[in-house]
Amino acid sequence: MTQKPSPTLDFWYEFASPYSYPVAMRIDALAKASNVTVNWKPFLLGPVFSAQGWQDSPFNLYPAKGAYMWRDMERICQQQGIPFQRPQIFPARSVLAAKVAMIGASDGWIAPYSRAVYTAVFALDMDIFRPETIRSILADLDLNAAQILDRAQTGEGAHLRQQTEGAIKRGIFGAPSFTVGAELFWGGDRLQSAINWALDST
Amino acid sequence: MTQKPSPTLDFWYEFASPYSYPVAMRIDALAKASNVTVNWKPFLLGPVFSAQGWQDSPFNLYPAKGAYMWRDMERICQQQGIPFQRPQIFPARSVLAAKVAMIGASDGWIAPYSRAVYTAVFALDMDIFRPETIRSILADLDLNAAQILDRAQTGEGAHLRQQTEGAIKRGIFGAPSFTVGAELFWGGDRLQSAINWALDST
Repeated sequence: MTQKPSPTLDFWYEFASPYSYPVAMRIDALAKASNVTVNWKPFLLGPVFSAQGWQDSPFNLYPAKGAYMWRDMERICQQQGIPFQRPQIFPARSVLAAKVAMIGASDGWIAPYSRAVYTAVFALDMDIFRPETIRSILADLDLNAAQILDRAQTGEGAHLRQQTEGAIKRGIFGAPSFTVGAELFWGGDRLQSAINWALDST
Repeated sequence: MTQKPSPTLDFWYEFASPYSYPVAMRIDALAKASNVTVNWKPFLLGPVFSAQGWQDSPFNLYPAKGAYMWRDMERICQQQGIPFQRPQIFPARSVLAAKVAMIGASDGWIAPYSRAVYTAVFALDMDIFRPETIRSILADLDLNAAQILDRAQTGEGAHLRQQTEGAIKRGIFGAPSFTVGAELFWGGDRLQSAINWALDST
């Protein structure tokens, strides 16, 4: 008798992405309720947007879209019962936070770390470009911040570039995105659809 | 004793917009289940996109986004149980169809007419730029096609321009969109949120 594999879902996110924040805060609980395993996959939107000819966030480039998004974030976070504060720096420079997340993926603390980074950006208006911010997040998780930051800055974080290239190869063009095999779902609103797809295709 | 007004929702759509099609096919039934009244508001995306610096649909300008959208449309239509065929002409030139819809708004047949136009574009791959297509849709609804087309082309359709300007003033930047007072919701995924907002704010 063979055991069916547990359904899995890849969650592609970028720490500067507003709509990724409420998803990060609820995805594990929601997936667990359906017995679906989530692979947290941080990547950088910068190269994705550059490939589309954008040198800034589309929310900055297109003011109507940006104005809508900030109001929408207020509504979504209020409905979800999570704090929200519009960050003064947008988009956040997320490369260090994302490199550290890659180490968290190896070491098993990526989910709580990522939730803490999102809270820093979108609830506490902290600057995640500053190593001090990341250091304090890691310390709050009882992790060895100095050692992890060293690993992130001296090579291990380079996997982030491969993961970003992998995102582009899969056709990902924004965040949050979800993949189940070759099937791509874009946007926080599609999380349940992606979970259902994982369930149906296992 | 005063009677509470029935909650209402404005549905902003463009006949060339793929994601507006599945919404058009279900919005009346879904809103009716919550006793919400839908105002069908056709507008043109061309001027909206021009204002954002785009001379074509973003689904054509950004290939990854476009590839995703066509696959997503297949999934959504299959789940909703409505036919879907990717149109050969995209985006459809929708100005005549939309001018006729403005007359339908005055005369009370805008919803069935709009559903028929969407079916023509996204299920039957018909060219709605051709007056013959619109004529046959109107005739199928037992309407006086010749008279209506004449009205659309000789002035009454001009309200479409005002409605498009109204959409831009409200901050609308894509379709489908929904408004309840000053609150804007963008995307078919937000239809239920918009209905809930209409219910809560009445």
